[in-house]
Amino acid sequence: MGDSASEKVSVGIVGASGYGGVQLVRLLLEHPQAEIAYIGGNSSAGKRFAELYPHVGGHLSLTVEAIDLDAIAQRCQVVFLSLPNGLACEMAPTLIERGCKVLDLSADYRFNDLGVYQAWYRVARRDQSLAATAVYGLPELYRDRIRTAQLVGCPGCYPTASLLAIAPLIKQGLAQPDSLIIDAKSGTSGGGRTAKTHLLLAEADNSLAAYSVARHRHTPEIETICSDLAGHDVLVQFTPHLVPMVRGILATAYATMRDPGLVRDDLLTIYAAFYRSAPWVTVLPNGTYPQTKWAWGTNRCYLGVEVDPRTGRVIVMAAIDNLMKGQAAQAIQCFNLMLGFDESLGLPRLSFYP
Amino acid sequence: MGDSASEKVSVGIVGASGYGGVQLVRLLLEHPQAEIAYIGGNSSAGKRFAELYPHVGGHLSLTVEAIDLDAIAQRCQVVFLSLPNGLACEMAPTLIERGCKVLDLSADYRFNDLGVYQAWYRVARRDQSLAATAVYGLPELYRDRIRTAQLVGCPGCYPTASLLAIAPLIKQGLAQPDSLIIDAKSGTSGGGRTAKTHLLLAEADNSLAAYSVARHRHTPEIETICSDLAGHDVLVQFTPHLVPMVRGILATAYATMRDPGLVRDDLLTIYAAFYRSAPWVTVLPNGTYPQTKWAWGTNRCYLGVEVDPRTGRVIVMAAIDNLMKGQAAQAIQCFNLMLGFDESLGLPRLSFYP
Amino acid sequence: MGDSASEKVSVGIVGASGYGGVQLVRLLLEHPQAEIAYIGGNSSAGKRFAELYPHVGGHLSLTVEAIDLDAIAQRCQVVFLSLPNGLACEMAPTLIERGCKVLDLSADYRFNDLGVYQAWYRVARRDQSLAATAVYGLPELYRDRIRTAQLVGCPGCYPTASLLAIAPLIKQGLAQPDSLIIDAKSGTSGGGRTAKTHLLLAEADNSLAAYSVARHRHTPEIETICSDLAGHDVLVQFTPHLVPMVRGILATAYATMRDPGLVRDDLLTIYAAFYRSAPWVTVLPNGTYPQTKWAWGTNRCYLGVEVDPRTGRVIVMAAIDNLMKGQAAQAIQCFNLMLGFDESLGLPRLSFYP
Amino acid sequence: MGDSASEKVSVGIVGASGYGGVQLVRLLLEHPQAEIAYIGGNSSAGKRFAELYPHVGGHLSLTVEAIDLDAIAQRCQVVFLSLPNGLACEMAPTLIERGCKVLDLSADYRFNDLGVYQAWYRVARRDQSLAATAVYGLPELYRDRIRTAQLVGCPGCYPTASLLAIAPLIKQGLAQPDSLIIDAKSGTSGGGRTAKTHLLLAEADNSLAAYSVARHRHTPEIETICSDLAGHDVLVQFTPHLVPMVRGILATAYATMRDPGLVRDDLLTIYAAFYRSAPWVTVLPNGTYPQTKWAWGTNRCYLGVEVDPRTGRVIVMAAIDNLMKGQAAQAIQCFNLMLGFDESLGLPRLSFYP
Repeated sequence: MGDSASEKVSVGIVGASGYGGVQLVRLLLEHPQAEIAYIGGNSSAGKRFAELYPHVGGHLSLTVEAIDLDAIAQRCQVVFLSLPNGLACEMAPTLIERGCKVLDLSADYRFNDLGVYQAWYRVARRDQSLAATAVYGLPELYRDRIRTAQLVGCPGCYPTASLLAIAPLIKQGLAQPDSLIIDAKSGTSGGGRTAKTHLLLAEADNSLAAYSVARHRHTPEIETICSDLAGHDVLVQFTPHLVPMVRGILATAYATMRDPGLVRDDLLTIYAAFYRSAPWVTVLPNGTYPQTKWAWGTNRCYLGVEVDPRTGRVIVMAAIDNLMKGQAAQAIQCFNLMLGFDESLGLPRLSFYP
Repeated sequence: MGDSASEKVSVGIVGASGYGGVQLVRLLLEHPQAEIAYIGGNSSAGKRFAELYPHVGGHLSLTVEAIDLDAIAQRCQVVFLSLPNGLACEMAPTLIERGCKVLDLSADYRFNDLGVYQAWYRVARRDQSLAATAVYGLPELYRDRIRTAQLVGCPGCYPTASLLAIAPLIKQGLAQPDSLIIDAKSGTSGGGRTAKTHLLLAEADNSLAAYSVARHRHTPEIETICSDLAGHDVLVQFTPHLVPMVRGILATAYATMRDPGLVRDDLLTIYAAFYRSAPWVTVLPNGTYPQTKWAWGTNRCYLGVEVDPRTGRVIVMAAIDNLMKGQAAQAIQCFNLMLGFDESLGLPRLSFYP
Repeated sequence: MGDSASEKVSVGIVGASGYGGVQLVRLLLEHPQAEIAYIGGNSSAGKRFAELYPHVGGHLSLTVEAIDLDAIAQRCQVVFLSLPNGLACEMAPTLIERGCKVLDLSADYRFNDLGVYQAWYRVARRDQSLAATAVYGLPELYRDRIRTAQLVGCPGCYPTASLLAIAPLIKQGLAQPDSLIIDAKSGTSGGGRTAKTHLLLAEADNSLAAYSVARHRHTPEIETICSDLAGHDVLVQFTPHLVPMVRGILATAYATMRDPGLVRDDLLTIYAAFYRSAPWVTVLPNGTYPQTKWAWGTNRCYLGVEVDPRTGRVIVMAAIDNLMKGQAAQAIQCFNLMLGFDESLGLPRLSFYP
Repeated sequence: MGDSASEKVSVGIVGASGYGGVQLVRLLLEHPQAEIAYIGGNSSAGKRFAELYPHVGGHLSLTVEAIDLDAIAQRCQVVFLSLPNGLACEMAPTLIERGCKVLDLSADYRFNDLGVYQAWYRVARRDQSLAATAVYGLPELYRDRIRTAQLVGCPGCYPTASLLAIAPLIKQGLAQPDSLIIDAKSGTSGGGRTAKTHLLLAEADNSLAAYSVARHRHTPEIETICSDLAGHDVLVQFTPHLVPMVRGILATAYATMRDPGLVRDDLLTIYAAFYRSAPWVTVLPNGTYPQTKWAWGTNRCYLGVEVDPRTGRVIVMAAIDNLMKGQAAQAIQCFNLMLGFDESLGLPRLSFYP
């Protein structure tokens, strides 16, 4: 009854021309149980995908279509929204209503409480009831809820790395309240494909700076999930930096330990246990710290753990590919869970190196 | 009596083939009151400098000589030692005895108390009495002592950026004890010119990692100077990272304020006052954070200051060129002070950009 | 009759610690019909592979073994030799004699006539009879001969790009004799993983230079194959350049056309026809020129073709990943042919971007 | 009579916000005989220069003014025009008429014959009589004419490197007609500071491609000057490439020698003689090829010369900093000549390295 092709899940990608979109296209083209039925975008509507990305073009004959929610809902069982903040919330309600499963890669559905969202993002929202049903798409923390979700708000790139770095500390109550500092460093692809002066190679190469200090929008996202894990409000100091490289995030997290007697081996044991069932998190052995390049092109998060007995602090480093585990590949991981597939289905395991 | 050439200060550079050495050569060639009388090195002895660095060769006809302390002392009034740790301490005593002024770019004379040095550097020393007379070559903190010093221990690259970032906090007692965290990022030239696998472009490009977490040797150097400023022992959490760029250090410093009521303007006022007489420190205006590239090729340190009212922390970012303010140009700045010249004499003011 | 695991081809990799080796390991780990039975190397013998490449370690539990030809021949049906020039010729005769199929990634078996090899490589050889049987592992030119080969000499990275760029011109006699100029540009991974000063990030980043002008060893390799295609001796001007990037080669080839009346469409038709059966060569449409990044991590070669009616020249640009189509992935392509598999089996199709 | 400040030459810069402009600002700030009296631009009018370039701001208190030719002519003896093509020709006639000396960094005054300009640039022009008086600002070829020029058309970046590479061959008639091929590689700052997608770090990093093959606008500029040197029409094959670095051009030039008996020493002698009086051209000794980084931040052009006895070709490599010798510093060199100063006055001699 039906050949294997017809059994594949038909998926749509809205916003296919950006970096999130092209990653989704690549990953879904290789996915054994997905079939791309629709790619949409407003600025690039009418163009063949091969015009946007010649190296993918030979493998995908689709043309970017104007966004038409009716058509999308008719043709797609699952829709990935890869759009600037404030647009998904105009589309998701209709798509959900028509029975689509939706994965949103923007910030629109990362907050169950839209009050926080509106305070930090300055976007008015009328879909609080839908937002309250959205599941935060970090499988290592919310695997079971993602399995049954209709709407997933995929995490930001910085929060993915930051939360994987500190979740065991928070969950186990190992850190002193309000001692958390996350100093994060990102490649420039996190700024997207839209041309901006400060992201030009001539500007960004061989330079390094912090930005949005004490006011980056990923701060409340990290704090909300930490508070959920801890059972009480958690404040986090979060500082992002722009680093002269294309892909990759390294989050260096600092926390003062409640119990200054813990040593590195204790922490490594706790982390290994916490991520025992997480196929995409690798806790590195004693004294090995993660290189962002190790994660290139994969869905993996590498964690390095260190304790400083002089200061009583634990320092955790998390390395991911910001466009993969930090964006598109993690969305596929959630897609797999939502559809009942193996969590790792179709995801590339091994980075190329160097 | 005597022409202007003979009035110039004759200087020697021991260890001219490394990055510190070639910077010193370039800066001293442009210095109106210095004349390079000797360049020495063991591995490159006998080679013309032009063989090591063709682009400098046309401006310097000297040949690298084997290291002979007698010859150096006879020909040089001032000697720059730019060697791996543990070698300067074998040479400085003799040079000082023969009347030379000595600027050491290694760690050997950064500690007046050799107990700390020996614990962290694992080098046995017998020159405690000489070490006790050495002045730490950070002009913004020890200008007057440098003027009269015979022996200057030039700061490490990370400590230069770190100390300039936090000195006003420490000196004024604004930070809670032991709340200091310095997350520092450096280009790969800090690792020197000796070929090492992890510094290859194919390895280091497009990757980012922390190293020597909780045990980097620049930690005690920062703590010693902080303790001197504070009048009591200060502990610092210091984490260095390797960034895929050639030059530049950004130190991001975090401290919890004793008085959580201070706002950014207060801090900017305090910083501006602290560095009022420092021609090479620029405190950036409200909301501007330093790019390391702005400091390229100059002796300048850019400081950005931010306060987070949510957490009560101050965040200070310091950007320098690790080979200039972090090494060779700062040594020239000290040289100028030691010789009674204007502090800025011969130092390039303006970076090229981009 | 035998489970699927036992039916896999057992392969060995000699020289697994370099960039060629780690690529082979990655590709063979993903290959559905291959099983890595042995990895060997002298300098890294006794180390677990995970110590050399932590990001691959989790997927391969093997330890690097000292090189023992008897053991290799017993355990492996196919052996990849990824060693410096002049070593494979000491091992291949024994391995072939014991019945192994051998793919050599060095220059040792790229020349059927060892006279040319010895003149350019300055290595004495005694295995002329075996060398005469080796097949040049460029499937687009020698597919049928590779299928039946026992010993394949895999092409150099520059010759792969260069030959794919000009083979149609040579084969069809479209170019004036001796008008061929190939100006090639390579990332620094082509220089290997051994630490060399000029390949340090601090040296090679943001710089560009030619090297081995008029005397690079890939020149006779290109000329030998061109002469074979043309049926007469062909001289080529070949100039390699080192470019500040990790992976990728762009070869820009110039030839004066015999028939100055040909236009771009003619050439594109000729190229498309020539590569009609080549799944890994993409001739780009009118006016699109290849970006090396499009080929990252894949076995693909992108060709762009242009004609200058003012000068009567054709200009062809070939872009490859030097470590993939230029080295390890092409070896797997040959392996597939030698073993009777589909030419593309197990090879990644899609590059990630950006 | 008159103090030293009043004796300085008052200069204006129109188009100060781009990369050409900021280089001119930096160089003129350091020039002992120039004083910046005006900086102008339309898009950035009303902004302090410090807002555009914080690292220069501390040294220049001027505000960018709207472009008013009357005001400029009143306040400036010399005007640098650093604008997109097609704008200088609207301003230069007025400025020249009012007695200013003008140096144009665009293509507008590089052609004495506007027919060629209009064919390649598609801009209609009505100032043929003025254009005919403009001098091509390449001092190594037209030093004497620049000294007396009122209007200088400063060369393009590619033509500067290309012409310095081949001028001795052309002038001496050493190359076979129409055998000239120039394969040029440039950093991305040549594309300017305007945000364009293909110049983003995320796009351009670690990638390499040719562009405008067989139709780049610098082709007729190179050919016009070559024809002037040769005394007959010269055709050149010119191919530009974009390289993942900020600054620098390497031009690799190929020519078939009329006399195949010439050896490298002959060529080196000819080149050394040709550039005997050129303080900014360095002909490298036997077998040394130029690194673009050697020229960073300076007005220098490095030339490497090689002969291939197998093919009878000469290969010449020229390395420059595209924003210095290829743009702003060369304009200052011309300025010095026009004003009767030493050709090298105020120009930085030594690059920093690495």
